[in-house]
Amino acid sequence: MAETSGIERRIMVTVDEGDESMYALSWCLKNLAFQNDKDHLILLYVKPPRVVYSAFDGTGYLFSSDITATMERVSQQVAEGVLERAKGLCNNVENVEVKAESGDPRDVICQMVQKWGVDVLVMGSHGYGVIKRAFLGSVSNHCAQNVKCPVVIVKKPKSTAGEI
Amino acid sequence: MAETSGIERRIMVTVDEGDESMYALSWCLKNLAFQNDKDHLILLYVKPPRVVYSAFDGTGYLFSSDITATMERVSQQVAEGVLERAKGLCNNVENVEVKAESGDPRDVICQMVQKWGVDVLVMGSHGYGVIKRAFLGSVSNHCAQNVKCPVVIVKKPKSTAGEI
Repeated sequence: MAETSGIERRIMVTVDEGDESMYALSWCLKNLAFQNDKDHLILLYVKPPRVVYSAFDGTGYLFSSDITATMERVSQQVAEGVLERAKGLCNNVENVEVKAESGDPRDVICQMVQKWGVDVLVMGSHGYGVIKRAFLGSVSNHCAQNVKCPVVIVKKPKSTAGEI
Repeated sequence: MAETSGIERRIMVTVDEGDESMYALSWCLKNLAFQNDKDHLILLYVKPPRVVYSAFDGTGYLFSSDITATMERVSQQVAEGVLERAKGLCNNVENVEVKAESGDPRDVICQMVQKWGVDVLVMGSHGYGVIKRAFLGSVSNHCAQNVKCPVVIVKKPKSTAGEI
């Protein structure tokens, strides 16, 4: 058996609306963490960046302040729902912290890894939902290249992938 | 504490001449493995592909059969040295297997993950040495995108990076 006791680690798992990130969290709880009570788990959800809309977008649709306020409220509700769901999986972990940040997930995740002194970053391979991925490219690729700590990229097996 | 006992995992660590892959192995032994005696560790070294040289290369240098035989002998010695060094780090693990395969590391690693039913792949972020990387691009990026199991990409911290 390898010697692991006494090592205090800060493990960050990024979570989003997709099932893959929840699978990554479950994988982390079973395989990576938590050999001792000192391990500290951070669950990070990154909300989409706040976009400053002009009164009319390119297609002529109006983005009123009501609509943007509604979008932000929904975004906050989604964040809370995701983090609650993720925290529910972590019953057996003593030190769990949830965080919601706004911005481009690629930048935010890399910044938070550094800011919070994360020792291991765990994420789903698709990273940050189907729609956002289409615009942003692979978040996991970007983070694997840019963060300094070890990165675990978890794919949900196809047999249980559902909508992923 | 998370429940991990009773899970049998096949963990593969790719090793090469660079210190980073040895760091990745050490990280794996401390952080990922081995909560129970059923865990199985595979150390994989991929030798460069055997190139069929024409009698003269583009610059007019002759590749005699003596030279190619010497190159293969050296390659085999390097493989054995790397695997011996890696195995030396695994004193506390009961089930360790060493493997040396030939080919493009990107393809070989992905194939072996599937062939051997690997549950977790661990590798250094730079993957497969400075010289080979220059020709092949990032092995870890390729594997993270193409294997089906979780991939751990480990970077050696700069403070102890030495020549990496």
